[in-house]
Amino acid sequence: MRIDVVASASEIRTEDVIHRSAVVIDVFRTTSTIVTALAQGAICITPVETVPKAKQLGLEGMFLGGERFCKKIAGFDAGNSPLEYTKELVEGRKGIMTTTSGTRALIKAGKASYIFTAAFLNVKACAEVLAEVDLDIAILCAGQQDRLTMEDSLCAGMLIHYIKQSAVQPVRLNDLGLVVHQAYLGCEADLRNKLKESNEAKRLTKQGHEKDVDYCLTENAFTLVPVMEDHFLVPWKAKEKKII
Amino acid sequence: MRIDVVASASEIRTEDVIHRSAVVIDVFRTTSTIVTALAQGAICITPVETVPKAKQLGLEGMFLGGERFCKKIAGFDAGNSPLEYTKELVEGRKGIMTTTSGTRALIKAGKASYIFTAAFLNVKACAEVLAEVDLDIAILCAGQQDRLTMEDSLCAGMLIHYIKQSAVQPVRLNDLGLVVHQAYLGCEADLRNKLKESNEAKRLTKQGHEKDVDYCLTENAFTLVPVMEDHFLVPWKAKEKKII
Repeated sequence: MRIDVVASASEIRTEDVIHRSAVVIDVFRTTSTIVTALAQGAICITPVETVPKAKQLGLEGMFLGGERFCKKIAGFDAGNSPLEYTKELVEGRKGIMTTTSGTRALIKAGKASYIFTAAFLNVKACAEVLAEVDLDIAILCAGQQDRLTMEDSLCAGMLIHYIKQSAVQPVRLNDLGLVVHQAYLGCEADLRNKLKESNEAKRLTKQGHEKDVDYCLTENAFTLVPVMEDHFLVPWKAKEKKII
Repeated sequence: MRIDVVASASEIRTEDVIHRSAVVIDVFRTTSTIVTALAQGAICITPVETVPKAKQLGLEGMFLGGERFCKKIAGFDAGNSPLEYTKELVEGRKGIMTTTSGTRALIKAGKASYIFTAAFLNVKACAEVLAEVDLDIAILCAGQQDRLTMEDSLCAGMLIHYIKQSAVQPVRLNDLGLVVHQAYLGCEADLRNKLKESNEAKRLTKQGHEKDVDYCLTENAFTLVPVMEDHFLVPWKAKEKKII
């Protein structure tokens, strides 16, 4: 099984994802928010690239979520904090989300056979689904301003660690995959504290979002794995596995 | 002291290097070759981007070195194997080099206050010079096909490790810096074997360049640090330190 890690949304190329399972990671905070909203009972979430498109697609009864420059968008129901996506807000509703890097990565992954999302909150479950699907994998870190972030890297490293435990075939990694896997192993024992040194964790903490940081660094709180089905992110169900 | 690591030559921006010490790393094999050639007695090396420019600048008595697609260029004295740069070939001579990523990174670093080159062969000496110069630092990994390589990443991680030991001020890292430092610490005890898993080490070995791989992974064989002075790479001498 081949696994390639891509550093940021801007670097994603069609050849990275075609005939593969793609996994988008944006720990702070898009993919942490998506898994939370679905776990709280949202029916589905549609990721879109622009604010006008989100407003255009939003119908009566849907919730709108997302951010620009880390701030909630005027007229939206929630920003990019997973803690805003409560059962009260999302249960039984469909939603639309737009964020700077995370939704861009999801859209650029469009040609993959499957598109999943991972965060620390569901990383182990995601590895199990990827091993079950048994295709080559593209791990797509969303990044920030076209560059790799520490939190996405170490989540990718942890995902590789779990895939190696679940996969039947031997795993071959690209160089970034080898590096993030080593980095994960290098700080596995003190992961949460190391991640608090990341530039985004520091920035979010400074802006008063410390609870978000703590929440997003929680490992394996959910067994739910979001998967894209016809432009909607829904919870993966093994029995729904497509025939490729 | 601020240290930012950049993943590949194509990602280098002027704002990464301005008012800083820049360090270019291309372990396989440009910066390993440059330090070797200077250590074997070459007077200076001029890095140029194109083969025609190398031929145009080459004067009687100079040696020409470099590669395209990992092969020696027709009419050149040597390719990109450091072991070709023997005392017999280079001592007392000026040289010109052109390689795919390494020389491109050197040229893109042009606006930095200082431009050094590092490889495992001289990484500790390079850290000491950087601490002595005491400017913020841009570590520029040359990469391959616009993406990070494992060998450049771990050399950058080792460089950071040594700088932290030598620097008077506390060191602040960007996220890629944090990741490569952790990756280095994660495999410090078994570095050579881990690096043999890198895609470029495997490719070079397959092509019969195993000796090059072994040589380039040798740590701290030299105390020489190449520095760019008016388009020429020469050995750094502390007394030549410029006043900025």
